[in-house]
Amino acid sequence: MLNVKTPEEVLAIIEREFCPLPGRTELTALDEALGRVLAEDIIGEEYVPDFHRSTVDGYALRAEDSFGCSESVPAILPCTGEVLMGEAADFTLDRGCCCAVPTGGALPRGADCVVMLEYAEDYGDGTIGICKSAAPGQNLIFRGDDVCPGKVLLEKGRTLNSRDIGALAAMGRVRVPVVKKLRVALISTGDELVPPEEKPGSGQVRDVNGPMLSSLLRGFGAEPIYYGIVKDEEEKLRAAVEHALENCDVVLLSGGSSVGAKDAACRVIGSLGELLLHGIAIKPGKPTILGKAGVKPLVGLPGHPVAAWFVTELFVLPLLSRLMGRERESYSLSARLTESVSANHGRAQYQGLRLERREGELWARPMRSKSGLISSLAGAEGFFCIDRDCEGLPEGAEIRVTIGE
Amino acid sequence: MLNVKTPEEVLAIIEREFCPLPGRTELTALDEALGRVLAEDIIGEEYVPDFHRSTVDGYALRAEDSFGCSESVPAILPCTGEVLMGEAADFTLDRGCCCAVPTGGALPRGADCVVMLEYAEDYGDGTIGICKSAAPGQNLIFRGDDVCPGKVLLEKGRTLNSRDIGALAAMGRVRVPVVKKLRVALISTGDELVPPEEKPGSGQVRDVNGPMLSSLLRGFGAEPIYYGIVKDEEEKLRAAVEHALENCDVVLLSGGSSVGAKDAACRVIGSLGELLLHGIAIKPGKPTILGKAGVKPLVGLPGHPVAAWFVTELFVLPLLSRLMGRERESYSLSARLTESVSANHGRAQYQGLRLERREGELWARPMRSKSGLISSLAGAEGFFCIDRDCEGLPEGAEIRVTIGE
Repeated sequence: MLNVKTPEEVLAIIEREFCPLPGRTELTALDEALGRVLAEDIIGEEYVPDFHRSTVDGYALRAEDSFGCSESVPAILPCTGEVLMGEAADFTLDRGCCCAVPTGGALPRGADCVVMLEYAEDYGDGTIGICKSAAPGQNLIFRGDDVCPGKVLLEKGRTLNSRDIGALAAMGRVRVPVVKKLRVALISTGDELVPPEEKPGSGQVRDVNGPMLSSLLRGFGAEPIYYGIVKDEEEKLRAAVEHALENCDVVLLSGGSSVGAKDAACRVIGSLGELLLHGIAIKPGKPTILGKAGVKPLVGLPGHPVAAWFVTELFVLPLLSRLMGRERESYSLSARLTESVSANHGRAQYQGLRLERREGELWARPMRSKSGLISSLAGAEGFFCIDRDCEGLPEGAEIRVTIGE
Repeated sequence: MLNVKTPEEVLAIIEREFCPLPGRTELTALDEALGRVLAEDIIGEEYVPDFHRSTVDGYALRAEDSFGCSESVPAILPCTGEVLMGEAADFTLDRGCCCAVPTGGALPRGADCVVMLEYAEDYGDGTIGICKSAAPGQNLIFRGDDVCPGKVLLEKGRTLNSRDIGALAAMGRVRVPVVKKLRVALISTGDELVPPEEKPGSGQVRDVNGPMLSSLLRGFGAEPIYYGIVKDEEEKLRAAVEHALENCDVVLLSGGSSVGAKDAACRVIGSLGELLLHGIAIKPGKPTILGKAGVKPLVGLPGHPVAAWFVTELFVLPLLSRLMGRERESYSLSARLTESVSANHGRAQYQGLRLERREGELWARPMRSKSGLISSLAGAEGFFCIDRDCEGLPEGAEIRVTIGE
């Protein structure tokens, strides 16, 4: 008997039964860090920039020496130096003097602002006329404005994007502490399956879940290990799962959609570990099994590709996030349905959709087809859910769209 | 003089001046195809599945033989066979008979529906009692329901996701025609720059744009080629750009933020190709140059990392999409501002933000800091834009949030 859980219950079981795996930190090169998960907070260790820095081309001076000046009555200051780009400004600016600085150049000691070239006139005799008064701090970045020692810049659990990589480069963090990728075993079961490169005979179909879930996992940042197609025989299945358990952090088996095979997957998972749930109240995706062997999850996915995709997206990725200590927020878009959709089977119903724009508004066209057809997901831009209590949604109804991995 | 264009004008220039590069199709293995751009429509070449397929465990029969039956008056049919999973059903079912089929199994000729096990009783004498009448087509997928010859499954220009990979696997398309990755040269210029792994001396800063834009481009699906840091000297810059032009499809140079260096970048781009624009009315990012040498774009990006990031995200990625014939839709989320933001400089203002949830609603906290600080983007989940005509937005105002690459 299936002891069917709601999606919320399944996520709670994942949260309760699994925790971030210890000892998973590794250092990666900065140019390999995109999409990886930070294993530690990134904390400033030095000042960036390490000097007061001009944000314009102009003249550095003491702000007070410009007070009260104007275009008609400029402040006339001797120009006692020039800072070159990329060089230290290792001198003190005397009161009543100024010095030329380029954008990004360092300020000499004593200077506390920069007046833009546009508001200064070079008289050619070693003096500069300043035509606009400046406030202290104007047109400069202070030492440590960007990063200073002790400041937390990026938090543990964050998935690094290109902007974060920029911040790490600015701090000189060229070796980044990230969470090791999880090795996720994929085993496809089913006597009817042939590899995608083969032409199926009558009664046979190609294994879709292997390549599809591999790419879903790879895009998420895991390392999929494909163990190929195993025949629907309990002993072969057990041997394959045992082997995968030794070499991987997580084992996903998909398929075994006939009654006997379903029971076999359940018995194998139950015999190698603890059975946590059997059945989720979603459509498609009901015949899902979750167990654990030690700290390692064992997941029995439905054989139908569409169901396997949804269960992986909705439950396996959160499970992997949990094991990695990854903070993962998924945002949804708002759109309107182009047509009505029915649903009344006591399960949350997930459906692929295509998005289109009508006068700037986003509309969602649900992909319709019989259950289990991969073409009901191919070409989809995202998906939506109809709650289990809902009997359907009318045309024009507002829905929340998830783009998904 | 900067001939400043609005963002819309810049996108129109890109559309007008550049077009998809010819002869860029290559075949890639299915497990390398995630995130790649389809170079051709994917059209069905065979029937998937190639046989009528049961979606349940049960008995295949002619629907008419079940008409009028019920639990109290079952239709009693001889069971004349059993289809095994993965095997052909190479026989014709006689009228008034049934045969056992597993989920996913093939139907024999003549059968046009499947009755679930739950509605059948095996009398043990070679006959089966069917307790529920079935309609033709019930519980089965017809041959070609998923894919049939001539059906367009995925369109040229589409970026492949894991669901699309599944469809390709189902069709046996293990070699996928995709658009070759664009080789994008990155040249950082600036006398003040040192590589990220070096400790900057006084007046120096680390090159942020090299690693940051590399990862932005890689995440987008291009192949960044980093040419390192070039000093602000026109002849060195020209030599570097010429060399990059020979080896790459696109050249991005970032930096040269002092007046002389800016002019040098402009002269180099102008001398090696045609100058298309100089200056975009956005903040940050105004000092941007776009040119083309033959069909190859040359882009002069601002030196400030935040400005360089926005210009790459907002204009360079659309430019690369244009060259690849990539259809790229970016969706935005709706959120409310946690605090007011001012803007009144006649340019569209882009700003990073962090997202937080308050009672299920999405709120955006703008990252505040002086222009040019990378920490104003690090840790940001996305960004928003304040239009050039807008003088600012109050707390609580609804904004459109882009997550970005």
